[in-house]
Amino acid sequence: MTPDQFRALGYKLIDWIADYRETVEERRVMSNEAPGAVRAKLPPSPPEEPESFDAILADFERIVVPGVTHWNHPRFFAYFPSNTTLSAVLGDLLASGLGAQCMSWQTSPAGTELEEVVMDWLRQMLGLPDLFRGAIQDTSSGATLVAMLCARERSTKDARLAGGLQSCPAPLVVYVSDQAHSSVDKAIALAGIGRDQVRTIETDERYAIRVDRLRARLEEDVRAGNKPCAIVATIGTTATTAVDPLEPLRELAQRYGAWLHVDAAMAGIAMIAPECRAHWSGIEGVDSITVDPHKWLGTGMHCTAYYVRDPAYLTRVMSTQPSYLRTAADDKVTNFRDWGIPLGRRFRALKLWCLLREQGTSGLLGRIRRDLANAQWLSAQVANEPGWEVVAPVLFQTVCVRHVPEGLRTDAEIDAHNQSWADRINEDGRAYLTSTVVNGRRIVRVSIGAEPTELEHVAQLWDSMRATVARRP
Amino acid sequence: MTPDQFRALGYKLIDWIADYRETVEERRVMSNEAPGAVRAKLPPSPPEEPESFDAILADFERIVVPGVTHWNHPRFFAYFPSNTTLSAVLGDLLASGLGAQCMSWQTSPAGTELEEVVMDWLRQMLGLPDLFRGAIQDTSSGATLVAMLCARERSTKDARLAGGLQSCPAPLVVYVSDQAHSSVDKAIALAGIGRDQVRTIETDERYAIRVDRLRARLEEDVRAGNKPCAIVATIGTTATTAVDPLEPLRELAQRYGAWLHVDAAMAGIAMIAPECRAHWSGIEGVDSITVDPHKWLGTGMHCTAYYVRDPAYLTRVMSTQPSYLRTAADDKVTNFRDWGIPLGRRFRALKLWCLLREQGTSGLLGRIRRDLANAQWLSAQVANEPGWEVVAPVLFQTVCVRHVPEGLRTDAEIDAHNQSWADRINEDGRAYLTSTVVNGRRIVRVSIGAEPTELEHVAQLWDSMRATVARRP
Ligand SMILES: Cc1ncc(COP(=O)(O)O)c(C=O)c1O
Ligand SMILES: Cc1ncc(COP(=O)(O)O)c(C=O)c1O
Repeated sequence: MTPDQFRALGYKLIDWIADYRETVEERRVMSNEAPGAVRAKLPPSPPEEPESFDAILADFERIVVPGVTHWNHPRFFAYFPSNTTLSAVLGDLLASGLGAQCMSWQTSPAGTELEEVVMDWLRQMLGLPDLFRGAIQDTSSGATLVAMLCARERSTKDARLAGGLQSCPAPLVVYVSDQAHSSVDKAIALAGIGRDQVRTIETDERYAIRVDRLRARLEEDVRAGNKPCAIVATIGTTATTAVDPLEPLRELAQRYGAWLHVDAAMAGIAMIAPECRAHWSGIEGVDSITVDPHKWLGTGMHCTAYYVRDPAYLTRVMSTQPSYLRTAADDKVTNFRDWGIPLGRRFRALKLWCLLREQGTSGLLGRIRRDLANAQWLSAQVANEPGWEVVAPVLFQTVCVRHVPEGLRTDAEIDAHNQSWADRINEDGRAYLTSTVVNGRRIVRVSIGAEPTELEHVAQLWDSMRATVARRP
Repeated sequence: MTPDQFRALGYKLIDWIADYRETVEERRVMSNEAPGAVRAKLPPSPPEEPESFDAILADFERIVVPGVTHWNHPRFFAYFPSNTTLSAVLGDLLASGLGAQCMSWQTSPAGTELEEVVMDWLRQMLGLPDLFRGAIQDTSSGATLVAMLCARERSTKDARLAGGLQSCPAPLVVYVSDQAHSSVDKAIALAGIGRDQVRTIETDERYAIRVDRLRARLEEDVRAGNKPCAIVATIGTTATTAVDPLEPLRELAQRYGAWLHVDAAMAGIAMIAPECRAHWSGIEGVDSITVDPHKWLGTGMHCTAYYVRDPAYLTRVMSTQPSYLRTAADDKVTNFRDWGIPLGRRFRALKLWCLLREQGTSGLLGRIRRDLANAQWLSAQVANEPGWEVVAPVLFQTVCVRHVPEGLRTDAEIDAHNQSWADRINEDGRAYLTSTVVNGRRIVRVSIGAEPTELEHVAQLWDSMRATVARRP
């Protein structure tokens, strides 16, 4: 493909994306392709000869697009928002065009320094104290793994440099709430810490970790000769966006020498709104934080902001200094390859930079506040409607609901009913929401915050919800 | 930004990229910005109000571009090629435009099924047997970590489900050659296996692992009560693109119950050329392989192909099944979130699909063969020139050289001289190459294979090399 062919095709794709975003509301939200249907339309072997890009584009529209679930649809209420704002699309396009590989400062100084700057801009926007330094990671799952690895190494006095985890007799123990995200359990397991060493602490009626229970487990473990390694707090749990209280957790972490990691993957972005920052109280005392610009904020995947208070410790765990990577500038610069697992690094700071500038703090704040208000609106509707319940405090943009119709008696019947109406809305294609189990009971989550979602779309969903339960299948 | 504003700006960016690629040869390869220079041009705080994208674009050209090292420059010979072919730029643009998040099959069926298909296309193109299944990972560093985690869990009979690595008394041991990439050491350390348990095996005169030494260490470890956990083989080492012999390694891995992981990050792509596949001999017996389409092939970061022979074991180690992620389709489909560390997943298969179709096997093969031939050409020039040496066999696209001028006596002097001429070429800006240490001696690597690099550019480099050593500073 010559640059001139690229030009013509590029215009076409830009047009396609503009049209797509303009008309996405007319599409069903969730793809209704059957398993295997997309694969069946694709040849089993690669083409021997070059194909025209127009043929590829035709297949994209015919085969790929019908198999896509539209995360940037105004009636996307599933899981969590994962927005790709148009300015971030442009920023990422520049990153592809440049094709710079930013593993080291020297391999593209601007890649490193822009990342330092935008991580600091975001820190300020989130109201995090100046003592934190940030780096972009691929996902919060990856960032939490990095945190658990650092916690393990700190607890074992850098066992990786000698006999490894096996040489440490006292079992390392990690504390999480029963509402922590699955990525936390996964990170602990991948760090080599067994399930027997994970203490899953009960939560209170607001689904926040019970500090009394945590304290008791810590004391018990220390008495038993175990070594508290890490505590993971969540700001905005996945099921109900509950908030663990950081002040008492940091006190316990300090007393017991445990690493305190904060998973604020989804809800951390709400801290752009100063009125949400009470939930951050105590944050200055934690060791690491993960927040995802690729969720609510709008950079698209993959852009996780990982903040640490001790970057020197992070790089001590993560760095390697083979001769082929050393450069003359190493003692004067940041080499982000030493801040995480991957060596190679795309120039991801560009899309975040474009987004933050094109929106400004005020633009992002406006959108966050719109979403918070929409959640409050829906919560009020649900609470006032007979037969419907809001089952958890609405602290951010997620409303957890249940419909308990007259006539259904058993928990199993009510659970099945709630799964059923959610499934029917999804299959119908007009909206997409997902369910989970909290306290053993099936609930439906309405996760608001797709970029194009306005109050009218939330109202449309609410209409659908009531209409759907009215016509029971 | 409205879709119409996006349209106008998008055209502008497409034009910028087309112009950039057309004229990149006129730029210096390595940025000569001083540490901190880019940062000093950026405001320390984020903008309060939205800014025009034109202002951002102006800063991009003024501040960012001078700080970029040009990996898609025809005279980029540093590290390894990391190409972003224009068709992959377009494919990735579509991924951003859609903004689909492909963590589960259900969250975008086409995201999963296209990845299954293109991973299989690539498998066929690389001449890998049908028993391997692939998934896209972020980097080879990440893929090798996944391999080491799986190896650890297999060796400990899934210790993560009980007492973790600490509950296993026999020390796990991992075997690597002294030429293995730093990401391998890092992965082992992050897996919780200490440096004392890493056996760094000597290499032969071709820098391939010495099988006799490996066998001896394995026997010794088993006698001592250690447990062989994994062997890591490299096809195309970073320093000299050496190849470890897979046939004997697989035999040893099998005999000792060790996981055999193959790091073919860079050179695996050469296997598109059937004449290179002798280096793959024995590959059907390995447990896992990492190959990087984001290096020589041309997808841009991040696109690592990770192949395993036992996907069920991989997903057993990596999967989590919280209620909020379960879907009705789960038993009929692939959920790639269970094939690696991250939960969230960008639709990365799109760029690989676009690249493979737009180039066809024949197009990619032509380019790989061009690069192999250019390396042979340079190798012949260097070998025939008095004072110059080719210091390692040229198996793929990297030529390792040294200049030993008359008059320099000590190893230290010769090392400094070779570092110096390479630095002077880089600073001059006309080409970019990097050095390393092999067998205790400084050598310079000429890594050929940037997409725009033709024979004339290699010849220009060779002229620069001779001219540079002629005018000693
Ligand atoms: C042999 C080898 N393995 C692994 C890597 C790491 O690649 P990545 O950046 O994808 O982690 C490299 C990159 O230099 C390499 O040459
Ligand atoms: C609280 C929380 N933590 C972590 C994650 C994982 O995010 P990622 O896909 O970035 O790994 C999620 C996503 O659902 C989440 O809600």
